[in-house]
Amino acid sequence: MKAVFLDLSGVLYIGQEAIPGAVQAVARLQRSGLTLRFVTNTSRMTRRQILDSLRQLDFEIEDAQLVTAPLAARDWIQSRGLRPYCLIHDAIREEFAGLDQSDPNAVIIGDAADGFTYAALNRAFELCLEGAPLVGIGRNRYFRLDGRFQLDAGPFITAVEYAADTEAVIVGKPSRAFFEQVLGEIGCSPGDAVMVGDDVHGDVEGALKAGLQAVLVRTGKYRSGDERRIDGEFLVVDSVVEAVDALLADEQAVAEPARDPFQSG
Amino acid sequence: MKAVFLDLSGVLYIGQEAIPGAVQAVARLQRSGLTLRFVTNTSRMTRRQILDSLRQLDFEIEDAQLVTAPLAARDWIQSRGLRPYCLIHDAIREEFAGLDQSDPNAVIIGDAADGFTYAALNRAFELCLEGAPLVGIGRNRYFRLDGRFQLDAGPFITAVEYAADTEAVIVGKPSRAFFEQVLGEIGCSPGDAVMVGDDVHGDVEGALKAGLQAVLVRTGKYRSGDERRIDGEFLVVDSVVEAVDALLADEQAVAEPARDPFQSG
Repeated sequence: MKAVFLDLSGVLYIGQEAIPGAVQAVARLQRSGLTLRFVTNTSRMTRRQILDSLRQLDFEIEDAQLVTAPLAARDWIQSRGLRPYCLIHDAIREEFAGLDQSDPNAVIIGDAADGFTYAALNRAFELCLEGAPLVGIGRNRYFRLDGRFQLDAGPFITAVEYAADTEAVIVGKPSRAFFEQVLGEIGCSPGDAVMVGDDVHGDVEGALKAGLQAVLVRTGKYRSGDERRIDGEFLVVDSVVEAVDALLADEQAVAEPARDPFQSG
Repeated sequence: MKAVFLDLSGVLYIGQEAIPGAVQAVARLQRSGLTLRFVTNTSRMTRRQILDSLRQLDFEIEDAQLVTAPLAARDWIQSRGLRPYCLIHDAIREEFAGLDQSDPNAVIIGDAADGFTYAALNRAFELCLEGAPLVGIGRNRYFRLDGRFQLDAGPFITAVEYAADTEAVIVGKPSRAFFEQVLGEIGCSPGDAVMVGDDVHGDVEGALKAGLQAVLVRTGKYRSGDERRIDGEFLVVDSVVEAVDALLADEQAVAEPARDPFQSG
């Protein structure tokens, strides 16, 4: 194994609190020599805010190690010279400030929270009906905040796709193209990388479909029985601490090929 | 042919105006001896309001000829003794007034328009995640009002289905069970009935899948090329007037079996 991709919310922290042992687990990974990427679809914080909040919680992270779906959306739009209608959270509007958003000919949908009004969704739908491409920031179904499950961007992207009979371009997880892009940037083949996440669809299934290995943690949005919702072999552990234990034990045990934690998934 | 099912909005009227010739076309059908049913998923008006507005526009209709999806939803919930959370338009709340809606253990989603807030959709989603059955009033994608396309209930039902990993029970079109129920009530086999509608998915595709014949009219929400969005043989005409012409010509031409307007669909 050469690279580890870590999801953030629900894996390293929940709300404003680090998951017990997660800071030390990340520090061990940073010292292990493995290439580390923090890969998030979060579309309620800018890249800068995510870096700051991770450091406030004492996580070690270099700027270049953070990969966010909103920036992938901006790049997709920018490289095509399109003008997006941004149905996104106010907190990340500044990430898109450099783009011309007048007379839109494209749609971006992220986790807009209360911004998901009937009027705003209608606007997105009308543009797509006229042929505007739809860019989805992730396809996550829900996340957990303050003990409650909350709808993420995925259901709303799916709604507009259904209404306008179109298919969204998904930037971020679980898009195969997104995993391949991150792998390409670090020069790693899929089979040499592992994704650790709490979302059995967005993290685990997406990674497996892109050829990566995967670990599901039982924190964050994990719900009992999630591991039976998808096919494929992957490891299921209580938290990122146990995930790192398994990954580093696996590293150290290369000389003993009989031991493979992924057999038990 | 024994029975004709007519969709309402977009076929007989648009907004507050009857489609030219539609009143006379319905009158001809009423006199033809064919069994007539007006079949609508509209969930912004009560059954009583629909009957009144049709009569105000001079359409001939008997109470028993009107079949609405909201009442089918109420029957479904009532027969199972469930307590629904109703994400519906305020205009039809009275249709559900007889049901206990405290501590809900089921979800009904209709065309709630501005009632589709993030908070309301989250509530529906949370209940479904806990196992509450989801009843969708139709699965229509959109409708046309005041010259603009507006999202109907279908996209929001699809969103909650996706988020909660569940499947809605659809009452109303295009549900096969719904068509079969209406056919059963009038004692007609599917092949002896024809559905006339402006929605290529909800009306035409749904009817064809249930074994009925179908006519697509180029009024209402019809958009150029809609007839190529689905497979199957059906007739495409400019309006309900032409549809009735074809249906009654077909009736009178039973002795000449070579003439079949459904060959051209």
